[in-house]
Amino acid sequence: MTSSAVFPRQPLSGRRLTERFQTVRNQTVRLCAPLQVEDFVVSSMPDVSPTKWHLAHTSWFFETFVLAEHLPDYVSPNPRYAFLFNSYYVQAGERHCRAQRGLVTRPSVNEVFAYRAHVDEAVLRLCDRIADDPSHPAWSLIELGIHHEQQHQELLLTDIKHVFWTNPLRPSYHARPLGDRKPAALKWQRFDAGVREIGHEGSTFAFDNEGPRHRVFTEAFQMATRLVTNGEYLEFINDGGYRRPELWLSNGWATVRDGNWSAPLYWERESESDDWQEFTLGGTSDLEPSSPVCHVSYYEADAFARWAGYRLPTEAEWETAAATLPIAGNFVEGGVFHPAVDDGRGQWYGDTWQWTQSAYVAYPGYKPVAGAIGEYNGKWMSDQWVLRGASCATPQSHARLTYRNFFPSEARWQFTGIRLASDS
Amino acid sequence: MTSSAVFPRQPLSGRRLTERFQTVRNQTVRLCAPLQVEDFVVSSMPDVSPTKWHLAHTSWFFETFVLAEHLPDYVSPNPRYAFLFNSYYVQAGERHCRAQRGLVTRPSVNEVFAYRAHVDEAVLRLCDRIADDPSHPAWSLIELGIHHEQQHQELLLTDIKHVFWTNPLRPSYHARPLGDRKPAALKWQRFDAGVREIGHEGSTFAFDNEGPRHRVFTEAFQMATRLVTNGEYLEFINDGGYRRPELWLSNGWATVRDGNWSAPLYWERESESDDWQEFTLGGTSDLEPSSPVCHVSYYEADAFARWAGYRLPTEAEWETAAATLPIAGNFVEGGVFHPAVDDGRGQWYGDTWQWTQSAYVAYPGYKPVAGAIGEYNGKWMSDQWVLRGASCATPQSHARLTYRNFFPSEARWQFTGIRLASDS
Amino acid sequence: MTSSAVFPRQPLSGRRLTERFQTVRNQTVRLCAPLQVEDFVVSSMPDVSPTKWHLAHTSWFFETFVLAEHLPDYVSPNPRYAFLFNSYYVQAGERHCRAQRGLVTRPSVNEVFAYRAHVDEAVLRLCDRIADDPSHPAWSLIELGIHHEQQHQELLLTDIKHVFWTNPLRPSYHARPLGDRKPAALKWQRFDAGVREIGHEGSTFAFDNEGPRHRVFTEAFQMATRLVTNGEYLEFINDGGYRRPELWLSNGWATVRDGNWSAPLYWERESESDDWQEFTLGGTSDLEPSSPVCHVSYYEADAFARWAGYRLPTEAEWETAAATLPIAGNFVEGGVFHPAVDDGRGQWYGDTWQWTQSAYVAYPGYKPVAGAIGEYNGKWMSDQWVLRGASCATPQSHARLTYRNFFPSEARWQFTGIRLASDS
Amino acid sequence: MTSSAVFPRQPLSGRRLTERFQTVRNQTVRLCAPLQVEDFVVSSMPDVSPTKWHLAHTSWFFETFVLAEHLPDYVSPNPRYAFLFNSYYVQAGERHCRAQRGLVTRPSVNEVFAYRAHVDEAVLRLCDRIADDPSHPAWSLIELGIHHEQQHQELLLTDIKHVFWTNPLRPSYHARPLGDRKPAALKWQRFDAGVREIGHEGSTFAFDNEGPRHRVFTEAFQMATRLVTNGEYLEFINDGGYRRPELWLSNGWATVRDGNWSAPLYWERESESDDWQEFTLGGTSDLEPSSPVCHVSYYEADAFARWAGYRLPTEAEWETAAATLPIAGNFVEGGVFHPAVDDGRGQWYGDTWQWTQSAYVAYPGYKPVAGAIGEYNGKWMSDQWVLRGASCATPQSHARLTYRNFFPSEARWQFTGIRLASDS
Repeated sequence: MTSSAVFPRQPLSGRRLTERFQTVRNQTVRLCAPLQVEDFVVSSMPDVSPTKWHLAHTSWFFETFVLAEHLPDYVSPNPRYAFLFNSYYVQAGERHCRAQRGLVTRPSVNEVFAYRAHVDEAVLRLCDRIADDPSHPAWSLIELGIHHEQQHQELLLTDIKHVFWTNPLRPSYHARPLGDRKPAALKWQRFDAGVREIGHEGSTFAFDNEGPRHRVFTEAFQMATRLVTNGEYLEFINDGGYRRPELWLSNGWATVRDGNWSAPLYWERESESDDWQEFTLGGTSDLEPSSPVCHVSYYEADAFARWAGYRLPTEAEWETAAATLPIAGNFVEGGVFHPAVDDGRGQWYGDTWQWTQSAYVAYPGYKPVAGAIGEYNGKWMSDQWVLRGASCATPQSHARLTYRNFFPSEARWQFTGIRLASDS
Repeated sequence: MTSSAVFPRQPLSGRRLTERFQTVRNQTVRLCAPLQVEDFVVSSMPDVSPTKWHLAHTSWFFETFVLAEHLPDYVSPNPRYAFLFNSYYVQAGERHCRAQRGLVTRPSVNEVFAYRAHVDEAVLRLCDRIADDPSHPAWSLIELGIHHEQQHQELLLTDIKHVFWTNPLRPSYHARPLGDRKPAALKWQRFDAGVREIGHEGSTFAFDNEGPRHRVFTEAFQMATRLVTNGEYLEFINDGGYRRPELWLSNGWATVRDGNWSAPLYWERESESDDWQEFTLGGTSDLEPSSPVCHVSYYEADAFARWAGYRLPTEAEWETAAATLPIAGNFVEGGVFHPAVDDGRGQWYGDTWQWTQSAYVAYPGYKPVAGAIGEYNGKWMSDQWVLRGASCATPQSHARLTYRNFFPSEARWQFTGIRLASDS
Repeated sequence: MTSSAVFPRQPLSGRRLTERFQTVRNQTVRLCAPLQVEDFVVSSMPDVSPTKWHLAHTSWFFETFVLAEHLPDYVSPNPRYAFLFNSYYVQAGERHCRAQRGLVTRPSVNEVFAYRAHVDEAVLRLCDRIADDPSHPAWSLIELGIHHEQQHQELLLTDIKHVFWTNPLRPSYHARPLGDRKPAALKWQRFDAGVREIGHEGSTFAFDNEGPRHRVFTEAFQMATRLVTNGEYLEFINDGGYRRPELWLSNGWATVRDGNWSAPLYWERESESDDWQEFTLGGTSDLEPSSPVCHVSYYEADAFARWAGYRLPTEAEWETAAATLPIAGNFVEGGVFHPAVDDGRGQWYGDTWQWTQSAYVAYPGYKPVAGAIGEYNGKWMSDQWVLRGASCATPQSHARLTYRNFFPSEARWQFTGIRLASDS
Repeated sequence: MTSSAVFPRQPLSGRRLTERFQTVRNQTVRLCAPLQVEDFVVSSMPDVSPTKWHLAHTSWFFETFVLAEHLPDYVSPNPRYAFLFNSYYVQAGERHCRAQRGLVTRPSVNEVFAYRAHVDEAVLRLCDRIADDPSHPAWSLIELGIHHEQQHQELLLTDIKHVFWTNPLRPSYHARPLGDRKPAALKWQRFDAGVREIGHEGSTFAFDNEGPRHRVFTEAFQMATRLVTNGEYLEFINDGGYRRPELWLSNGWATVRDGNWSAPLYWERESESDDWQEFTLGGTSDLEPSSPVCHVSYYEADAFARWAGYRLPTEAEWETAAATLPIAGNFVEGGVFHPAVDDGRGQWYGDTWQWTQSAYVAYPGYKPVAGAIGEYNGKWMSDQWVLRGASCATPQSHARLTYRNFFPSEARWQFTGIRLASDS
């Protein structure tokens, strides 16, 4: 079986593959514009990769899975880069240990950009040969690389936010976000019990873990029409949310105590007024009560839902509820990267990723592709939850109804928030 | 809502509550007969509790949830026992840290048995007052305590096995097991796609997490008619199973490396012949190829299934397949506690617990009872998998079709094994 | 070179070797009289060994270093005991890891006592052959074993105190200590600068690390005539001693913060009155202001001395000052094991060990014996301080002017206290 | 007491203070010339500080201890720098945690150089006011800052070597070192027993821990006339040095096993030929047998000495032996930073620091100055050994007969080597 069967071709947006490749690669570079050389180097915690590494790894991805096989005369600028910039593909050879990514000062940022240019030139040369023919075996791999690059665009922003937060000087990536607005009223949409189909099918692009499309039964349920806000979450805090073990999963309560958690990540109290502030990519600002709460873990999302008398949705419920709506939302790719207020369309995409109570496991009939590329999604199917939707840091063209993002229970450096559900 | 609604009454086996209480409590004491005083004290790893603690904790359970509320003149022999023997019920007061359970030499074993006798006398006095009336509010709590006691009977055996294993002298709990027999041929039973009902309903006893009964859709699947054997698992090992990362979940592979795993827990090679041996409650003996493989983690079960070209079942598939069969199997409560061979009835119960690929989360409509007793099952609903069936160490009267056992991915000191499934 | 050259013979107390052996071995057994079987098994922290292990290890010492070589027909009751009960002698073969000493329930306490009896019988048989002839090569090894046994008598008490402390029920080993008395006034004795001789020489017993006797130069100094009391140490606490980093060595301050230290080990505040109490082998009692402060680390001793305007003595100063006095003090071997008050003779021995600011390194000319027995003292000569004197838990016949005890900076579960010194 | 009493004035080299300040500050900047911006940011292990931090911290030192008190109109460019660049002076205010030094990307390298320039300008202004008058209270503090800067010059090189080593690409700081030369024959110089004086006295600069000058007695000893070479150390390795526990201190052996040590730091075997290579600031090159062995811990120095039949010297012995010789040696400040061969003058300075078996404690009569500056040396007087001499990375004008460097037993990222001694 070739990988093209699993990562199907997609003439997305009607644009040619060459154009899509260039657009997305350029966007990655644009995201680095506000950074100084020093900012590219460090990793502020085990989950965070250096910006420099993101830039190189996404290039290595094209080099390894596209160029090595389909451009016979391709020569890497440095054969050691394969060791340094392979993330986790054990079938693609030995690799640097993740814990030391932030300790490697060379290649320099300039050398990494040169590496990107080298890879770009080669991929474009290959694109010429392919002539936008989706039946060419390299076509779908290039498309996969483009979507892979988009994932790292979001990670780049997520990670640099944490790097800046780790610095007592609290530098900012960008200009300050705009002020707060009124949130929409929280309403509930009811869905009857029944058999549904979920998952991806067809010729447009999706990751392999989004399929096969299959049937599920959902008992009747209700789904909130917008996300939980900072203001609502503050009520939970003020009601002793972080001090009441009965509201928490057992592992969640252990995490709260061990980590001294008393609020979402990036919240801190202004030392004099005791008012809550939020660190954003635009620096520290007053907490906006109407914005969706962000940077909460599964444990916090679950505890909040229990406190509020609701629960988190399953991914089948989420997809069922979101299925009738177009993909639109507060994507702010060139903007402030600050969870935005409800625009009345339900906040399904473009504000925060939404925790579901569905564990990340294979759909019935799922088979990863053979070889290293099959490690992309399949080997992560334990000890994580599915998140649905898309965040303000997600590239808009990357958002999809069937997208299955996944993180473990305690992760909260991603742009993750809360949508409530309930039994009907 | 009272707890009786959630833990419904059950006139199990037609026996009176008093008789059931005495039978089960006596059985716990009988399980301790082979032990010396020193064996009751230690905890050989964080998951393991001392025998002494199991004996006291199960008594504390009756004291706290039954006697304190329903026998007004009850006085504990030592008010500090509530601190020492509360396991994890945060709403039942402060408690000793789990990590130090194995460091507490007093109360002595004799004092703990006296504590049990004290509690037994009081519960029997209360049983007299209740007169086996299931509508009495204490009735269902005593019944819950009986089932709780049975869970700890299994844990007591699981834990003492690990304690003995930790000792270089390899003491044995019991006489040696019988020899090996031929396994049944592995066959496959096919199930059509469709909506099923799973979960517990009715007046017999079940834990709250087994309900509510609800509908699920399963695509067509096939289920193996017996468990994977030691011999089959040995083929996996001999084929490099523990050295091939491509067969493993990413977290599983990390666990294999960090723990230097090369076989199931309790397997070791005889130093001279290099033959595999297995440590059992009857001491070390040659590995029996026909016995079900036991003491494997989820990671190992998953890797084996991938290697074999199959997968693990979901809990809905398991319950669907097992639903037509009576509960019978190799329960060896008074016996050798060694996973037994196939008796031709499918090995659903009484050999090993069977990992499913279903995460342990709430069924639709699940609500834990209010108060400390609600912590029994509900707060564990993250980061664990459901296991189905029952093991050779499970009391036979404790096994149930709808039973949901749960452990995290890396746990393998329980009697856990593998049943294979596949897409149809 | 034979070990007898390094551990010279000693007709101590004029008693025959046989009698000394029996007396000391019996004393170890007597120390166990207050314990229940459960108490013998556990290790409450890495430094602590189970009582059962002390009983077996001291027997293993005779078996390995005396019987194996000098009693040709000796047969061990279990050849695996050599693995279980070798402490740290790498040249004496493989051994059990220290961290798991407290997890081994078998051999049982009764079996360990039988092991002792087996070894005792053999050693006495050998003693008969030797006929108390110090020139027999086994003579000095038996003597060494006797002193080794005495060291473990102190450790047994030190360790069981910590085991009981770890238990929230706070059991006691013994009857309560007597009440407090007035301390002597703190006076200072002045010593001129000059060359002195320190260290052991001659035919009486000493450990190899106490020699060779050699010359040192000490500048003029003053030495306190008694130990620091609980009352004086309380002033340090009340003056913010544990909250003022400028009083501490850098590593000491890190230890205070990491360990949340606010008082010596075994001190705790009575919850209602907020009065300080001290846990002793006789249980918890009110802190006695006149008793020597005990269970302080080097870091605490050093910080107290700095706060008080003094310093700790060097071992040369200590030995110079103590040299003119006979060995006498508050040894309470059969008693309450509670640091006692000043008897006017300077408290050099029998209250607490006294930290010096001398690192534990070799004396000029020191050579350990060849073979495993040479590991006794020599390989510990780094990262530790010398302590001088003897504690209330030291056997009186074990105390010596030249004795060099040694522990690392943070250790405080031993009976360790403070004697002050100053530049003149 | 003012600090000038403890850190006495010194008209070193006959140069004016202003000139000395400028020379030393410029030398620090020159050391950074081979680095790229990325190299300034990271910390490759807990002992290592980023280059950027060294540059800023040495400036903070002048700001805090000189300018804040003696230049009333001085204004810091950023008041948060005091938090970021205070190393360990608790009395100088709150400070950033050491473990996160390598995670702080701002201020940028350019901003740090601007900070240096800002401080330089202010110190030079102050120097003008002082007019090189050693009786001015700021004079000796500026001198102290100059010597502090020189210490960080060595650390900067030590640390960047480790940063480069951590990078699988093995970048080099500098051009390759020259080839190997013949070592001098190892000879022994004998010293009689007697009372000597050691320590600093007089008006030239020394750190406070080098005094007071005082008397010590040394028994007769012999001292090697040169350092141990790579070739000699290789014999130790080839003789099983890293596999024979009997050669090691107990803590040393544990360190060898836990760290998988099999050679000095920076040694590695060429994968094909199996020849030993050494990573240097000039990159990886063949091991030079005649160069002094470098980057060994105390444990390795001690084990080597035991294997060779000798021991390490005490600091009194070292100072006695070195006292008659001028300070000269293989200082290679502008050069290759590679331990050099014997020049026939004894290699006392300028090759490697030399471990002594003297613990780092106070000399008799030592008193640190009051206030934060007293933390410079005094609070480190536990758990470390004294090293004597100077290394190839030490500024030549920084080397002194009485210099007391200090590191813990396992440290080996410094340029540390071995000089042997023996009892006479």
